[in-house]
Amino acid sequence: MALYGGIEAGGTKFVCAVASAPDDFRDEIRFPTTTPDETLAQAVDFFRAHHARTPLTAIGVSCFGPIDPDPASPTFGYVTTTPKPHWAHTDVVGRLHTALNVPVGFDTDVNGAALGEHRWGAAHGLDTFVYLTIGTGLGGGGMVNGRLLHGLMHSEMGHMRVPHDLTRDPYPGQCTYHGDCWEGLACGPAIEGRWQTKGQHLGVDHPAWALEAHYLALGVVNIIMMLSPQRIIMGGGVMDQQQIFPMLHKEVQSLLNGYVQKPEILEHIDQYIVPPGLGNRAGVLGAVALAMDAAVNAGSQA
Amino acid sequence: MALYGGIEAGGTKFVCAVASAPDDFRDEIRFPTTTPDETLAQAVDFFRAHHARTPLTAIGVSCFGPIDPDPASPTFGYVTTTPKPHWAHTDVVGRLHTALNVPVGFDTDVNGAALGEHRWGAAHGLDTFVYLTIGTGLGGGGMVNGRLLHGLMHSEMGHMRVPHDLTRDPYPGQCTYHGDCWEGLACGPAIEGRWQTKGQHLGVDHPAWALEAHYLALGVVNIIMMLSPQRIIMGGGVMDQQQIFPMLHKEVQSLLNGYVQKPEILEHIDQYIVPPGLGNRAGVLGAVALAMDAAVNAGSQA
Repeated sequence: MALYGGIEAGGTKFVCAVASAPDDFRDEIRFPTTTPDETLAQAVDFFRAHHARTPLTAIGVSCFGPIDPDPASPTFGYVTTTPKPHWAHTDVVGRLHTALNVPVGFDTDVNGAALGEHRWGAAHGLDTFVYLTIGTGLGGGGMVNGRLLHGLMHSEMGHMRVPHDLTRDPYPGQCTYHGDCWEGLACGPAIEGRWQTKGQHLGVDHPAWALEAHYLALGVVNIIMMLSPQRIIMGGGVMDQQQIFPMLHKEVQSLLNGYVQKPEILEHIDQYIVPPGLGNRAGVLGAVALAMDAAVNAGSQA
Repeated sequence: MALYGGIEAGGTKFVCAVASAPDDFRDEIRFPTTTPDETLAQAVDFFRAHHARTPLTAIGVSCFGPIDPDPASPTFGYVTTTPKPHWAHTDVVGRLHTALNVPVGFDTDVNGAALGEHRWGAAHGLDTFVYLTIGTGLGGGGMVNGRLLHGLMHSEMGHMRVPHDLTRDPYPGQCTYHGDCWEGLACGPAIEGRWQTKGQHLGVDHPAWALEAHYLALGVVNIIMMLSPQRIIMGGGVMDQQQIFPMLHKEVQSLLNGYVQKPEILEHIDQYIVPPGLGNRAGVLGAVALAMDAAVNAGSQA
């Protein structure tokens, strides 16, 4: 059984794992994201120790961004213009490849998780779907016609503009670039900023959750209208508040107002907007799936 | 040279053409959309007359919607739940196939136009782009990774929600389903409803156009964030007001606020958001492109 390394490279923490599949998950390590030198060295040390015992076939990285995911570009594999200190213009793939000498797969954190959910989780058998994470930030990726979303750059769904009723919610939003974009209104730090309490300390009946469901529904409706996905998977720390899902289902139906006459939305919306099938391992297992694809691509180019 | 029939089937009028390519455009006819019986019979008569002289290899239909574009579905080729009188649940492809006995390609009006622009127009050589039409309605289609956007149904980009500042613009929007969704605020009838004058009678310096550019920019920004297209093509009657383009370019840059660090947007936005390369024949030539693909598919299945 070939073994792969996966890195869920987040802006706050790195999760590294060795696995061949979700049911063959061999090892995992977590550490804070500091400088590229220190953080990537910790990842390399973890994989080298495994590699010495059982060679890893490839490594995959589901990476915070913005990144350059275009294999034809001279800066493929870089974190590009991130405001995160020290990380702008870091050649993540190049450093890992030099240190470990195996193929390195690379995509956004959310495209990685989408690939993992497609292979083993809630998107299995689908060809057009979206994976969203709502936590420190709000991001989305996914597949259209069976291929991961890429284009000029990559999706940055959190930075969509959505309606913001200042009478109902005077909170100005927390996005450095756009103030009250979708992420600015609905990510975890926006909940804390608005209510002056961390989300996990608010009771399940707190009005924060109805407002959160409202904002999430506005973005989800825009995704439905733009991409017509067969399913929308929603993970991340905020979605651990399971009471959001039923409110979100109702609000999406209410905003669509019967416009999309499909049983998936009219009758079975609880199976249409769902948590990740891989739970909180969606990110790192997605990185493992990226590694598997990198190995296949390297083989076909050899 | 194989000849194809194309139908741009709009809610207001049908345009039928016979062509092998944009520079070999043989004939065209236009007539109002009335009942399915009468309208489809007019199209059939036009193609039969040509067919008798030079056989047509296939027909393509770029159709108003909602439609069922899924070849695996029992209602493939139908206009489905449209509020347009007489047209709900009309088997457009079946009727044309029975009458003309050639392969019939079928997709949304905007996906058809996108395909035409990809083959011969402003999207040539791209693999991820969006085609928008802003006229009686507001719709969008396009390609991701070289394949037309489909999923649970098809894109209905006009029904995204966008911010609406009621102080600046108290007009409530004209969408029957959603009031002030993107289409409800920015389509041609919304301009007329807001200013009580048809758009084509408003001077080029009328404040209507700055507001229109603002609304169009909000939706375009959401498309950029969701799909990261390599180009956005904008046609339809409203975009015949060429003064909108420079205002739109500026407003999109202003709303993005430097978030997407790509020269296509920062430096060359006038080549990034563009009118159709095929002009007002984008729709009907797109239908011809759908016919060409239908002929290829029929050949590969034979």
